Amino acid sequence: MNVFVINSGSSSIKYQLIKMPEEQVICSGIVDRIGQEGARVEYKATLSGNEIKEIKLMPIPDHSVGLQAVAEFLTESQIGVINNPDEVEVVGHRVVHGGEKFASTQLISEEAKQKIKELFPLAPLHNPANYLGIEVAEKIFKKARQVAVFDTAFHQTQPEVAYRMAIPNEFYEKHGIRNYGFHGTSHKYVSERAAEYLGKADLKLITVHLGNGCSMAAIQEGNCVDTSMGLGPMNGLIMGTRAGDIDQSVIFHLVNQLGYSLDEVNTILNKKSGMLGLTGFSDMRDIQQQIEKGNPEAKLAYQLYAYRIKKYIGSFVAAMNGLDAVIFTGGVGENDRMTRQLVCEEMNFLGIQIDQTKNESPKQTVQEIQSDDSNVKLLVIPTNEELEIAKQCFGLLGN
Amino acid sequence: MNVFVINSGSSSIKYQLIKMPEEQVICSGIVDRIGQEGARVEYKATLSGNEIKEIKLMPIPDHSVGLQAVAEFLTESQIGVINNPDEVEVVGHRVVHGGEKFASTQLISEEAKQKIKELFPLAPLHNPANYLGIEVAEKIFKKARQVAVFDTAFHQTQPEVAYRMAIPNEFYEKHGIRNYGFHGTSHKYVSERAAEYLGKADLKLITVHLGNGCSMAAIQEGNCVDTSMGLGPMNGLIMGTRAGDIDQSVIFHLVNQLGYSLDEVNTILNKKSGMLGLTGFSDMRDIQQQIEKGNPEAKLAYQLYAYRIKKYIGSFVAAMNGLDAVIFTGGVGENDRMTRQLVCEEMNFLGIQIDQTKNESPKQTVQEIQSDDSNVKLLVIPTNEELEIAKQCFGLLGN
Repeated sequence: MNVFVINSGSSSIKYQLIKMPEEQVICSGIVDRIGQEGARVEYKATLSGNEIKEIKLMPIPDHSVGLQAVAEFLTESQIGVINNPDEVEVVGHRVVHGGEKFASTQLISEEAKQKIKELFPLAPLHNPANYLGIEVAEKIFKKARQVAVFDTAFHQTQPEVAYRMAIPNEFYEKHGIRNYGFHGTSHKYVSERAAEYLGKADLKLITVHLGNGCSMAAIQEGNCVDTSMGLGPMNGLIMGTRAGDIDQSVIFHLVNQLGYSLDEVNTILNKKSGMLGLTGFSDMRDIQQQIEKGNPEAKLAYQLYAYRIKKYIGSFVAAMNGLDAVIFTGGVGENDRMTRQLVCEEMNFLGIQIDQTKNESPKQTVQEIQSDDSNVKLLVIPTNEELEIAKQCFGLLGN
Repeated sequence: MNVFVINSGSSSIKYQLIKMPEEQVICSGIVDRIGQEGARVEYKATLSGNEIKEIKLMPIPDHSVGLQAVAEFLTESQIGVINNPDEVEVVGHRVVHGGEKFASTQLISEEAKQKIKELFPLAPLHNPANYLGIEVAEKIFKKARQVAVFDTAFHQTQPEVAYRMAIPNEFYEKHGIRNYGFHGTSHKYVSERAAEYLGKADLKLITVHLGNGCSMAAIQEGNCVDTSMGLGPMNGLIMGTRAGDIDQSVIFHLVNQLGYSLDEVNTILNKKSGMLGLTGFSDMRDIQQQIEKGNPEAKLAYQLYAYRIKKYIGSFVAAMNGLDAVIFTGGVGENDRMTRQLVCEEMNFLGIQIDQTKNESPKQTVQEIQSDDSNVKLLVIPTNEELEIAKQCFGLLGN
């Protein structure tokens, strides 16, 4: 089964064509800068053992033109991988917010599309772009079944104590204001890989997804029971440019005492905070270089970043009354040994002991980095959200 | 030494006259509804073994008139406890926000008053009222030395990882925006009582102050290393009417999607949320009655309240890499066994095991409520912020 996975953003479309159940990536790429100067389509494929990469600069006024250009690459006579768009059997769409309407992967019908539209107020930046990707894909891959995989779905198993907020009930009942959680596709993928690797399902896991966005999940017997993000994707852990958890007083203080507009505060907390706000850099590799140069702000930022993760580990241990393994994933989680080191050191009271040498060696598919006397397994597992979307699609429609 | 302790709010003045170092409360009371209809002065004292309580209804247009009325009770020929206001040697003022300017109790000078004024923007609701109390007391107790005891001071030992926020550095450097923490007088008092009781100083303690406001502190060797409140007193634990921690997205959502003004949101999160928002009641005793009547909202609210505390315990355990004792205090912490039970159950992974019977029996000065096989001590210790203020004053000026 050919599954074409689409992650449609406001000005980009990331895609992969994956053959299932072989889990073979046939091609991948991105349509970037849609509606902007310098728009381009990138296309990568492996043909007869040779990796090829093509970049086409062209005006891309909208998502439709962009995805059409991808379809042309896919079916191109020399470098194409299929003969006809109709060979795509399933299109799997990443949809950020499924609200309480979607607790699992969903075949897209008119009704489902309507529901996704109704969720625009909960994710005004993301869901409209995801929706647009669906509409465009329906026109180009006419024979394919369209499937929505929601970032929030995995977290729908959270109990009320975790997802309810202490605000007037009507906000939940009438407006769906509660903690949803995001990066569910990644948390689900790596937690299932961990359970496979450890060879049992009855586990208390904490998954730590550290990428541009960062979040954590507490997972008990395969079900998410708590997560660090809430209604939207800005709270919880410290991120590249997002503050994560912050005393809400700060918002009122910035507006009422310092004269910022609420929109400016939103921009500050989303785009100018986090590691960027603390150091001037949002990429952890840059910040590491700064640390090596002796920059004290960079050092402090790293400590803050790790301390927040530590505290969430503790809170999730309390929530689950136990811990079997901590899983690091995402670009930073997989590659940044310093973060893992800082998070895990002085955590032996919780049964966590890291092995510095194992933590330094290059990663394998699943890598253990705890010391021999650690009661808790510490695993580094590369995430693969596109593959997880394809797996979800295959699970729904493969038989 | 006669220490007159004042807690001056926007429309009330609570007071106690305490003889130090005997720690003997000579009289106490409150000036209530200042500037409002139904203003009154309450005065309680023990004279020759008899407890007396007087209430005087009178117009109280301002704090000055109110404190003058208290001074008249103090020196009244029949029920007074001193002959002359000049017999008050020290006035100890509760001041909510000491910012970074005050890490300890301070003799009030013109310079100190100026600094307290400079902190008005950080605590616009509290510091002006505290300041007014100082000015009025200076006029009435002319011979007394005035001392400020800050709610934030005890938390000034927090390390940067705990007090810094992941927002642009300039907000900290230019505007002092960071986590301060509150209820410091209570956290200090009960943690010192606990250390005395346990007979050692090298302890990792978590203090849980549950009153109208609620907060927690992680205390290592007597020093606060983290606390649940931040810049202001609205985040952290769920409180009577305050939401505590909340995804900041909610604020933007309420304004941008649901059309509330930012001031309305502030009022919702401060006055209409917490237990009130979840149940319609802000007093835990009312909510318990609702639970007994089978009200599911009341039950859920209790679980949310306890779950938040559990998670903070876990996060502070991670922060300290250990735990010797948890101390419950404040009106709810001292009296509400159901809260303590819900917080402590299913926490044995962290070494916490409560004894239901001990938890039910009436409180003593310091009461242990853990089971025999609990690794962590669970203590109920009544707080006494007024006494702590008097102790601080005596510590500063007693010799």
